[in-house]
Amino acid sequence: MYSYTQLNSSLVSIFEKMGCSSADAHTAADVLVKAELRGIPSHGVLRGLEIFRVWEAGRINTKPNIQLVHETPSTATVDGDSGIGMVVGQKAMSIAIEKAKDVGSAWVAVRNSNNFSIAGYYSMMALQHDMIGFSMTSASPLVAPTYSSARMLGTNPISVAIPAGQQPPFVADFATTPITRGKLTVYSKEGKMVGDGYVQDKEGRNANDPSVLEDGGAILPLGGDYEHGGHKGYCLGSIVDILSGVLGGANFGSLVPPMVAYLPVLQQTVGKGLGHFFGAMRVDAFRPIEEFKKSMDEWISMFRNSKPAAGQDEVLIPGDPERRNEEINMRNGISLLPAIEKELNEVLQKLNLA
Amino acid sequence: MYSYTQLNSSLVSIFEKMGCSSADAHTAADVLVKAELRGIPSHGVLRGLEIFRVWEAGRINTKPNIQLVHETPSTATVDGDSGIGMVVGQKAMSIAIEKAKDVGSAWVAVRNSNNFSIAGYYSMMALQHDMIGFSMTSASPLVAPTYSSARMLGTNPISVAIPAGQQPPFVADFATTPITRGKLTVYSKEGKMVGDGYVQDKEGRNANDPSVLEDGGAILPLGGDYEHGGHKGYCLGSIVDILSGVLGGANFGSLVPPMVAYLPVLQQTVGKGLGHFFGAMRVDAFRPIEEFKKSMDEWISMFRNSKPAAGQDEVLIPGDPERRNEEINMRNGISLLPAIEKELNEVLQKLNLA
Repeated sequence: MYSYTQLNSSLVSIFEKMGCSSADAHTAADVLVKAELRGIPSHGVLRGLEIFRVWEAGRINTKPNIQLVHETPSTATVDGDSGIGMVVGQKAMSIAIEKAKDVGSAWVAVRNSNNFSIAGYYSMMALQHDMIGFSMTSASPLVAPTYSSARMLGTNPISVAIPAGQQPPFVADFATTPITRGKLTVYSKEGKMVGDGYVQDKEGRNANDPSVLEDGGAILPLGGDYEHGGHKGYCLGSIVDILSGVLGGANFGSLVPPMVAYLPVLQQTVGKGLGHFFGAMRVDAFRPIEEFKKSMDEWISMFRNSKPAAGQDEVLIPGDPERRNEEINMRNGISLLPAIEKELNEVLQKLNLA
Repeated sequence: MYSYTQLNSSLVSIFEKMGCSSADAHTAADVLVKAELRGIPSHGVLRGLEIFRVWEAGRINTKPNIQLVHETPSTATVDGDSGIGMVVGQKAMSIAIEKAKDVGSAWVAVRNSNNFSIAGYYSMMALQHDMIGFSMTSASPLVAPTYSSARMLGTNPISVAIPAGQQPPFVADFATTPITRGKLTVYSKEGKMVGDGYVQDKEGRNANDPSVLEDGGAILPLGGDYEHGGHKGYCLGSIVDILSGVLGGANFGSLVPPMVAYLPVLQQTVGKGLGHFFGAMRVDAFRPIEEFKKSMDEWISMFRNSKPAAGQDEVLIPGDPERRNEEINMRNGISLLPAIEKELNEVLQKLNLA
């Protein structure tokens, strides 16, 4: 079991050894530990170790010159100079927030970045400014468009964070697919099959074997097959890919760069590195903040107090499960899977940080 | 079979008889005929006739004083003064476009409006300005949050329109549910059952009878049950409800006003009328327009040319089916269902327009 401080220091020391400034190392570590606290270990220490491997392979610049390459009062395009995604992401979201302070709302497209861990970290940065935050990113292609057998989209998450008054904030943070690669790996290791509507084989036929991705298969978009509205999930994943990839000049579609070191760098490119997209809207640019917070509290109470379905105890608000995890893990500490703990210690030893 | 001009004139004459200015009548009719052309008859003449009934019930103001009640350089809140949704919607989207011209991007929250037909009409208004358009709206509550048996959300559509160069634009326009009420009615009339993952009974248990809505049942969010990612569809529907309802001061959740005259006006309110949310982003606020259009053409070609799944002829781009319908219906004319044609003629006779 690790305390927040222990885990944070270990990660900071790794990023510093990789060449990051102290500020950047803290920035990067903070996102990863937040992911652990919120109960999303696939995006925590594990992601940090993946980033370390990608850096070892020479694909990450730990002293990036992150530049604002294009702007208007309410928009900007940022070049991440191959930096760590968490460092580039926080910088870009901060620009969106500063611009929104001036003109009410703002959007920042990012190119030439890398994996940024959880989308929700950046959208939640807006909350303390009484703003609504938006965050999304492209990801390694694993998802087939409706009617296609090709892997053209990532799990392309969207996060929207909305402040409330007495109630905790509304924080949606979700992949635009019915299942993640991480969950499929777990099913596969347990020898279980998955139901219909999650994955397809390399010919685009519904599949139930969770290891089908290793044989050219693909994840379906949110909704599943066409009959269940999978084309709507295809729309969503595409919107994320275009706003994160095409708009700022990053790679897109099947040419989004892989985020793990064991996959080769793609020779063909249609842009620079990986892209993200961030937004911030001042609530008081639409309505007095106290009025809005009161209404938002009403919204949350209305949904939380709606009648639970048979067999359910309660109706949750987006962000509830992660916030509860955060409270528990802050109090009790963060436990890592043995395999991840082992790899963390190996990396610490390799860097003489044990 | 009706030509575009015939159908448009009939609808214009009805709106004028209802008291609309000639400009507003044309505005409203144009959206409805566009819905027919694009092959979405549930939002065309049928929707126009529903709006007529709601007006007859005294709930629509055909001479609205649509007012900008709050603004910053990149945002505005508009009060629709109980006007026809298509009139309010076009005005609000025009404000977003004008503000985006000045500062790069802009968002308009709308309260006190009514049903606006297809979301895609408004997002597509941005295309001719080389902008990306966004449009969404609250709708009558029929959808249950994950783990709830209560009807708290509408089918809450989202539309995003993105310009391209040589290729036709990308136009996504989709409900945040796996199925619409219209389709359930058709299944019900055909005596067919629906599969799992579409609807639940009044206790929140999976149901297969498409008429379950008449007995207190609900539509599931996009994704279906929790295991298939239905909570992600719940997130999406909620985001639309909050941005369209709470942000501009309209009604939200289970208190969104019904859009048909045969349902009573709700006595309890948490805001004013129905809400929408619109956005516009200048492409050249992020990247030179010609560069973007070239990349967008590449995006579209990449997806269109991806390998079709077994048994499929082609991979579609969001907007393809509706654009093809529009080409066919412009050439061959628009056919109305006999029941809709009959009701249209009854209304025309009632107003001495036959």
